[in-house]
Amino acid sequence: MPVSTNFRRVFSGRRVLVTGGLGFIGSNLVRTLVALGARVSVVDSLVPEYGGNRRNLAGLASRVTVHIADVRDWPRLPRLVAGQDFLFNLAGQTSHMDSMTDPQTDLDINCRAQLAILEACRLHNPGVRIVFASTRQIYGKPDYLPVDERHPLRPVDVNGINKIAGESFHLLYSRVYGIASTALRLTNTIGPRMRVKDARQTFVGVWIRRLLEGLPIEVWGGEQLRDFTFVDDAVEAFLLAAARSEAVGQVFNLGGPPPISLQRLAELLVELNGAGDFTVRDFPRERQKIDIGDYYADDRLIGRKLGWKPRTDLRSALTQTLAYYRKELPHYL
Amino acid sequence: MPVSTNFRRVFSGRRVLVTGGLGFIGSNLVRTLVALGARVSVVDSLVPEYGGNRRNLAGLASRVTVHIADVRDWPRLPRLVAGQDFLFNLAGQTSHMDSMTDPQTDLDINCRAQLAILEACRLHNPGVRIVFASTRQIYGKPDYLPVDERHPLRPVDVNGINKIAGESFHLLYSRVYGIASTALRLTNTIGPRMRVKDARQTFVGVWIRRLLEGLPIEVWGGEQLRDFTFVDDAVEAFLLAAARSEAVGQVFNLGGPPPISLQRLAELLVELNGAGDFTVRDFPRERQKIDIGDYYADDRLIGRKLGWKPRTDLRSALTQTLAYYRKELPHYL
Repeated sequence: MPVSTNFRRVFSGRRVLVTGGLGFIGSNLVRTLVALGARVSVVDSLVPEYGGNRRNLAGLASRVTVHIADVRDWPRLPRLVAGQDFLFNLAGQTSHMDSMTDPQTDLDINCRAQLAILEACRLHNPGVRIVFASTRQIYGKPDYLPVDERHPLRPVDVNGINKIAGESFHLLYSRVYGIASTALRLTNTIGPRMRVKDARQTFVGVWIRRLLEGLPIEVWGGEQLRDFTFVDDAVEAFLLAAARSEAVGQVFNLGGPPPISLQRLAELLVELNGAGDFTVRDFPRERQKIDIGDYYADDRLIGRKLGWKPRTDLRSALTQTLAYYRKELPHYL
Repeated sequence: MPVSTNFRRVFSGRRVLVTGGLGFIGSNLVRTLVALGARVSVVDSLVPEYGGNRRNLAGLASRVTVHIADVRDWPRLPRLVAGQDFLFNLAGQTSHMDSMTDPQTDLDINCRAQLAILEACRLHNPGVRIVFASTRQIYGKPDYLPVDERHPLRPVDVNGINKIAGESFHLLYSRVYGIASTALRLTNTIGPRMRVKDARQTFVGVWIRRLLEGLPIEVWGGEQLRDFTFVDDAVEAFLLAAARSEAVGQVFNLGGPPPISLQRLAELLVELNGAGDFTVRDFPRERQKIDIGDYYADDRLIGRKLGWKPRTDLRSALTQTLAYYRKELPHYL
């Protein structure tokens, strides 16, 4: 990501904690923060099913303090949050299916640990500035498209319910205790350092893996519309949200229009890869009940309030991602 | 509550579990269920700060199985829910202030334990019929009055956030796993067997206690409008919700129009008591940030769908409540 002078003024020399900092978006954010001169600490559990991967911070060992810790481990939180100027709170369980097969773990991470983090801030660092990674999953099956921030929240899975609670705790602590927080509701985010081993973080990950391994992509359904944010754009949104006082106590969608059907996305990936194939199959039965159908975000609010807009078109985002994994794939399997 | 023949057909001889069954609404429900011929088991933690009180089931010892157990104690849940035909799920932490001073306990009871109860049902008794006690607190500060079920959910305290999650889990398990659930969003409920020791369950409780002890009622603010459901009417709503298939997967407000200001309520209580006094004081600072202002429910949906309506007017509700505590107060201190 190009580093703006303005961000350098905000973050240079400041102490920043990134939970989930070895993960996909977290590590890209850490890299940018380091380039901006911030003093960055990372908390990551490295739970194998989640997004954390030491490779994501390769080359930064001497410039980032990495704590292998789980946000469910409360006693550690006070020392981690104390003294930080910024907290980018990205630790989370992201798999919708896992939230159904193991709902208590999703709850403990996405709901219970979030409250513990906020309590640690309230007691040990109430002046910290927080940006929380929320998700479009909380809207459920859209009533209308594009989905703006006023759309009702009607989650279709345990993950959506717990993420609502996690987001709500942040906004409550901001309002009641003045712990300045902003929530970003992410849509599908793609780019270097995402999990490609399986579909736990995003189905695009496993599509890219299969393509690079010479296997056909499996498209479930195919007609569903989705939007995609390139990770550099998401990182910019996190920085803007932390830097701007207008963002305090607010919730913003991130998007990446125009939307595209999953089948068209598969075609585009095959084209950009220069080889490959895909098969279309019916949506698996066990996933139908938690599917949200078409989704794409109305992200004009963050554009209006913070001047954010997605800069990277989908073709370029996929090209950069493919290039990264062509070289790095072995480190992500 | 008068026992309808119809309810007798539904509940007679059936196995019914009531969580929070030594509490205020729970115990009144248990009494009615026993009168209807149901085989009732009760789970209650008897945590001193909550609503459970053995006195509430006085005289029923031989007709109800009481388990002193905490819904947070997961390993006990499977045996408790197995074999039950109905589950009235009323166990909860109700104090808004306590949810702010001890938020993790509120989360563990109102959110985490609810998921554990539903998982126990999914694995050990998916055919059970559930009615869950939700709350008007999830709406937060109303945008409009009266508040109907489509009003946005914007809770102002930790309790509201956790109750949303608890309610959402019930609706999700109903939709995804077919575990037939209904949620009732209660407003202020009053009547015999409510907690009067303090304001943890309802401020009306401590008002009645003070009145009977010859102390002045403390009215905070005074202009706020509220509605009140008499407990017999609430019990009827729970039975209707469990008995009627139209209620599955649905959410209903309970109300008790017309609304009344707190000051007018205090005047009415003093009048009905035949003696007493009240003082009006400013809303305490620490509570202002979690106050919801005026609230009263639009309860026409449950009227239309299930034929429920509040039968007891406020004057009669308060008279019956005062009469109960005039005799029973020592058992509730």
